[in-house]
Amino acid sequence: MFKLIKTNGKARRGEFHTPHGIIQTPVFMNVGTLAAIKGAVSTVDLKEVGCQVELSNTYHLHLRPGDKIIKKLGGLHKFMNWDRPILTDSGGFQVFSLAALRKIKEEGVYFNSHIDGRKIFMGPEESMQIQSNLGSTIAMAFDECIENPSTYEYAKASCERTVRWLVRCKNELDRLNSLPDTINKKQMLFGINQGGIYDDLRVKNMQEISKLDLPGYAIGGLAVGESHDEMYRIIEVVEPHMPVHKPRYLMGVGTPSNILEAVSRGIDFFDCVIASRNARHANLFTEHGTMNLLNAKYELDDKPIDPDCQCPTCRHYSRAYIRHLFKAKEMLGMRLGVLHNLYFYNKLMENIRNAIENDQFEAYKEKKLKDFSSRL
Amino acid sequence: MFKLIKTNGKARRGEFHTPHGIIQTPVFMNVGTLAAIKGAVSTVDLKEVGCQVELSNTYHLHLRPGDKIIKKLGGLHKFMNWDRPILTDSGGFQVFSLAALRKIKEEGVYFNSHIDGRKIFMGPEESMQIQSNLGSTIAMAFDECIENPSTYEYAKASCERTVRWLVRCKNELDRLNSLPDTINKKQMLFGINQGGIYDDLRVKNMQEISKLDLPGYAIGGLAVGESHDEMYRIIEVVEPHMPVHKPRYLMGVGTPSNILEAVSRGIDFFDCVIASRNARHANLFTEHGTMNLLNAKYELDDKPIDPDCQCPTCRHYSRAYIRHLFKAKEMLGMRLGVLHNLYFYNKLMENIRNAIENDQFEAYKEKKLKDFSSRL
Repeated sequence: MFKLIKTNGKARRGEFHTPHGIIQTPVFMNVGTLAAIKGAVSTVDLKEVGCQVELSNTYHLHLRPGDKIIKKLGGLHKFMNWDRPILTDSGGFQVFSLAALRKIKEEGVYFNSHIDGRKIFMGPEESMQIQSNLGSTIAMAFDECIENPSTYEYAKASCERTVRWLVRCKNELDRLNSLPDTINKKQMLFGINQGGIYDDLRVKNMQEISKLDLPGYAIGGLAVGESHDEMYRIIEVVEPHMPVHKPRYLMGVGTPSNILEAVSRGIDFFDCVIASRNARHANLFTEHGTMNLLNAKYELDDKPIDPDCQCPTCRHYSRAYIRHLFKAKEMLGMRLGVLHNLYFYNKLMENIRNAIENDQFEAYKEKKLKDFSSRL
Repeated sequence: MFKLIKTNGKARRGEFHTPHGIIQTPVFMNVGTLAAIKGAVSTVDLKEVGCQVELSNTYHLHLRPGDKIIKKLGGLHKFMNWDRPILTDSGGFQVFSLAALRKIKEEGVYFNSHIDGRKIFMGPEESMQIQSNLGSTIAMAFDECIENPSTYEYAKASCERTVRWLVRCKNELDRLNSLPDTINKKQMLFGINQGGIYDDLRVKNMQEISKLDLPGYAIGGLAVGESHDEMYRIIEVVEPHMPVHKPRYLMGVGTPSNILEAVSRGIDFFDCVIASRNARHANLFTEHGTMNLLNAKYELDDKPIDPDCQCPTCRHYSRAYIRHLFKAKEMLGMRLGVLHNLYFYNKLMENIRNAIENDQFEAYKEKKLKDFSSRL
């Protein structure tokens, strides 16, 4: 159940109530693809950096260790020792971005594993079965994520099929939620809006999927080739057709600036790998701009990454030390970087929530867009 | 200052007082070669796993980031944010095991860096200067660590030179400790006993170096090719000639069983990379024996690595989960493994200290030698 607490322009301050606790929105989900956050970060650490929702991947966990193994072990929450909400991606995006030799049919997708090449079939029902085995809080619909730009004809056919798949997802999850040995019988399904860069397809698709009255809706198929301006335009086109009292999730987005822009256009949920991926390359976010710690000027810099930051890294270690760790290829460098960047993202969302509550979101956004564009 | 509190057979329970706090002995030093513990473990973590003394490497830190950089940043304690004792290895062992094209002369060793091949000279004075720049609590003497077996003639010439080098180390450290800008003016020098596998050389060498009245003494050149029985015999031969009221450090040793055997022969200090290295290969120590988590039988095992263990890993994560992390090559697997093994070693030393205090060391040792030989 989504409770819209306050709006400030299009920006929304909400609460999403789940069986695993309340999610304060806008929220950034911290990505743990394989039931672990890259950079040696654990679920104990996630709590310390203020993570509300962890995101794992159906495709990856189906291959390793296998969703049936995780079900036998009591589900993903128990497996990774995380009692807060988990959202699982449907596998759709990974099937299209990672798997080889894929063949799309009405029933689903035939493809080869990117690990051992074995043949796998995944359709809406299989994706729901896997996500049900994982027992996540929120299951994402199985969709086709097309590249931008694709032709109008391809985008149209694809998103019409995605609607048919969504109906099958809903029916299958309803069935699974009613089975006696299902781990999370209150698993929720989010639908995903597609349509490439074509406004009319996006709108029609959103109107159709909103009729299913799902617990939440995502905008998918962005940040896959189009410009930022196109992305913002599509959000503006789709948003008026999204249910007001359901959470809205912009999948795979993005930079701190992307998030500010999307919140100002009415988005509530975000996820992106750049928080952790950038950190693993010594690219760090701060309230005053971004920095790359490999830069020689940090060799003798004994300040924390961000002197105002209260993250586990900034409370204990200096730029010079972390730079040394990266240069010496010590894993600890990545860990300290990831902890900092995740904390930064989670804190950013907290600041956004506060700004909305105080009717100051636009001023906050304008100031931070300037701050974040600095290169330290 | 070393305070011998209690003996139980040859086993000793002591306290080593340093400017960075008291070390309770017997003690296992946790290895952080490059000012970081491999496996993404930080100094904050070291406190959580009960580490008393951290060990870093002169050779490695001289190359990266450079000891002069660390000095400018206030020394190694400040650099890595660790306020407890640090022991620095002299670089001797690494020059002989890692560097290429080394040439040993009376003045010291000429060699090429294993990183970029550049020519470096290191003698007793240089080693002391580097360790003084690092500002460690305990500096180790610069010695030649010969392979076992070496010829009698070579071992004799080498350990006679090592005694001449030790005198130079002492003089140089005395000079450095009196300089106004030295970071730790109370830096202590430990001498190192050498002599290969030749009892008479070992004894003569120990008698000579003990005359220098240094704050502590190590037995070096073991665990480099000889059998365990030879190692124990050499400890038994050397030990009666080691000062009673100085700590005794067996360098680079060893397994939990090696440590029990060496404590029973009068050793106080240990260090070894196997605690962390084994963990990074999923080889874990428990009170009931060793296990390799890659073994398929742990796939559905939801118990902690050791159900009786209170380490940060065992308090939160299962064998099945950590096994998955190793299989999926997630860095978090290594981190959780290393945290467990370091905790295990530090706890082992605590148990050893308690057993000595209670006059039960031999019984404890016999029981644990059996436990540790089990393969789970």
